[in-house]
Amino acid sequence: MTNSQFGADTLPRAMRWEGGELYLLDQTRLPLQTVEEKQETAEQVWQSIRMLKVRGAPAIGIAGAYGLCVAVKDKTDLALADFRTQVETQAAYLDSSRPTAVNLSWGLARMVNCAKAASVDTAKALYDVLVAEAEAIHQEDILLCRGMGEHGAPLIKPGMGIMTHCNAGALATSELGTATAPMYVAHSQGVQFRVYANETRPLLQGARLTSWELQKSGVDVTLLTDNMAAHIMSQGLIDLVIVGTDRVAANGDVANKIGTMGVAILAKHFGIPFYVACPSSTIDLNTPRGGEIPIEEREDDEVTSFGARRTAPDDIKVRNPAFDVTPNELVAGLITEKGIVRAPYVENLNKLFGQG
Amino acid sequence: MTNSQFGADTLPRAMRWEGGELYLLDQTRLPLQTVEEKQETAEQVWQSIRMLKVRGAPAIGIAGAYGLCVAVKDKTDLALADFRTQVETQAAYLDSSRPTAVNLSWGLARMVNCAKAASVDTAKALYDVLVAEAEAIHQEDILLCRGMGEHGAPLIKPGMGIMTHCNAGALATSELGTATAPMYVAHSQGVQFRVYANETRPLLQGARLTSWELQKSGVDVTLLTDNMAAHIMSQGLIDLVIVGTDRVAANGDVANKIGTMGVAILAKHFGIPFYVACPSSTIDLNTPRGGEIPIEEREDDEVTSFGARRTAPDDIKVRNPAFDVTPNELVAGLITEKGIVRAPYVENLNKLFGQG
Repeated sequence: MTNSQFGADTLPRAMRWEGGELYLLDQTRLPLQTVEEKQETAEQVWQSIRMLKVRGAPAIGIAGAYGLCVAVKDKTDLALADFRTQVETQAAYLDSSRPTAVNLSWGLARMVNCAKAASVDTAKALYDVLVAEAEAIHQEDILLCRGMGEHGAPLIKPGMGIMTHCNAGALATSELGTATAPMYVAHSQGVQFRVYANETRPLLQGARLTSWELQKSGVDVTLLTDNMAAHIMSQGLIDLVIVGTDRVAANGDVANKIGTMGVAILAKHFGIPFYVACPSSTIDLNTPRGGEIPIEEREDDEVTSFGARRTAPDDIKVRNPAFDVTPNELVAGLITEKGIVRAPYVENLNKLFGQG
Repeated sequence: MTNSQFGADTLPRAMRWEGGELYLLDQTRLPLQTVEEKQETAEQVWQSIRMLKVRGAPAIGIAGAYGLCVAVKDKTDLALADFRTQVETQAAYLDSSRPTAVNLSWGLARMVNCAKAASVDTAKALYDVLVAEAEAIHQEDILLCRGMGEHGAPLIKPGMGIMTHCNAGALATSELGTATAPMYVAHSQGVQFRVYANETRPLLQGARLTSWELQKSGVDVTLLTDNMAAHIMSQGLIDLVIVGTDRVAANGDVANKIGTMGVAILAKHFGIPFYVACPSSTIDLNTPRGGEIPIEEREDDEVTSFGARRTAPDDIKVRNPAFDVTPNELVAGLITEKGIVRAPYVENLNKLFGQG
């Protein structure tokens, strides 16, 4: 299996680790500018994650792991025990940049566990182990995306219209994306289909990122404002919905970008199956149900302005929840790297993790 | 009944006819700038309607009527028969500026009928009759809005959360608005409630206009992006939805700003009553069902850019339907100036017009 089989050569890369340095593609400037920023400090990585320069649950998990390497890189002169303490301190700091996605905590916890378990004699040696662990997380994500792509692609039949929301694409992961992985695989197999990308206010990840990466890859994509979804569905143009997720609870409730639950309810109304693509790292068996997932509420000015231009009255009250929780009964299936999981979710997710 | 009873003194005016001139408030510049533009020619009026400087179904009906006066003002030297022909020609021209709202056609047809029926001897005299007719349409709209307000206000109970979409407020009409009329009346009666205004992409009438006019009037209003509606409803914050409409079909199907049907479907899912405020001029018994209402598809750049800033890739395919049609089974009632009409709509709308 080569990258070019999936057209992966045409896919943008959210980040790369090269010459011992972490480079993040600044996604806030897309699609107008394609700028990579070298990450020099823990504070810069924290800001890059907070400001959504890198975003998407899997991508921030990987960026967090690499970012931890950035954060401790200049501390390898410390005694090993002090260096290990620094690894834990910096991991906790980076983990505070975004609250909803489980992948960030997951990636950082894996790095901390690696640091605790590693049989090394020096801080420098431990640093090298941590870099290798981050690279492993990155490589594993590529394989996870391919697995979701292979399991999800058969859902896509010739002529179908597929709706997606936000960006759960190459830019949110390391290669094929999560929600987009079945699309890229089906496209590489010559299946003809249309994608409708919701723009995803307030930050327009659908307009700026999803439509951009699908267009670059030759997939037939049409951009919609979020509030057109019902009309487009009512016209019979949508046969399938696939979205990504930031966290799946043990009962199959799905936290994803604000607006996802609305799309799921509309899909149910029109009898359209609603699927969620998720690597198993996004499934959090420690969270029993969606109501217990913290929902990040972001700054007002994301809603009241666009670019530098104010678009709402001064002092207007605003809500800005970044996520919502789609109840499990609206989810036709979870497309994982191991296969499609369907209801009953508690039972079948436990089976997926070998705990059934 | 005085204006101040409803706090109407604090309400913005979409247009005024003064000294024989039509002034339109340029709503595309709100809320940043409050600029009135004197309308000099038929072409300018056509553009003002097309470019949404004046918008909202009732308002464009009134603007069309006044605009027709602007269009024929310099033609009163013509012979009466030629002037009447000009009235018809200019009315047909203005009517081509927006296709979906029935009020524009309705207002212009009323002016043309008035021109045909008027017992006058000169073009100048007919012109004066037309101005009086336009002023009558304007005054009637004020009373229609008050009627909707009085019939709709009892739906609003203390402590309720009310969602609205787009702007069916003072700026869309001549005084209290349609969807906002029950709110302004309830507010003037001291009822405490909260309004959640969806921003309404692509042109942000909710962010720019509804939140602005409600805030100015002292109503507790919170701005949301459109895709937050489901989440906010799921939190139990919404008890009632009231929207306006551009045209109601004889079976009760409702054409309104894109996104309205989505809100209606979400409201049904969460068991929240969904009401539509509509003066009887918006009810079109000649359109049997919603599927026969033409849906205006507007320019791509409303979706792909904001202000001068491009927010989507070059050459991306776009859909931009300006309206959708909410099926009658999702509508709890139509709030008209004569009372609230409920299902079965064909029967009850015929009764409303004395044809039952």
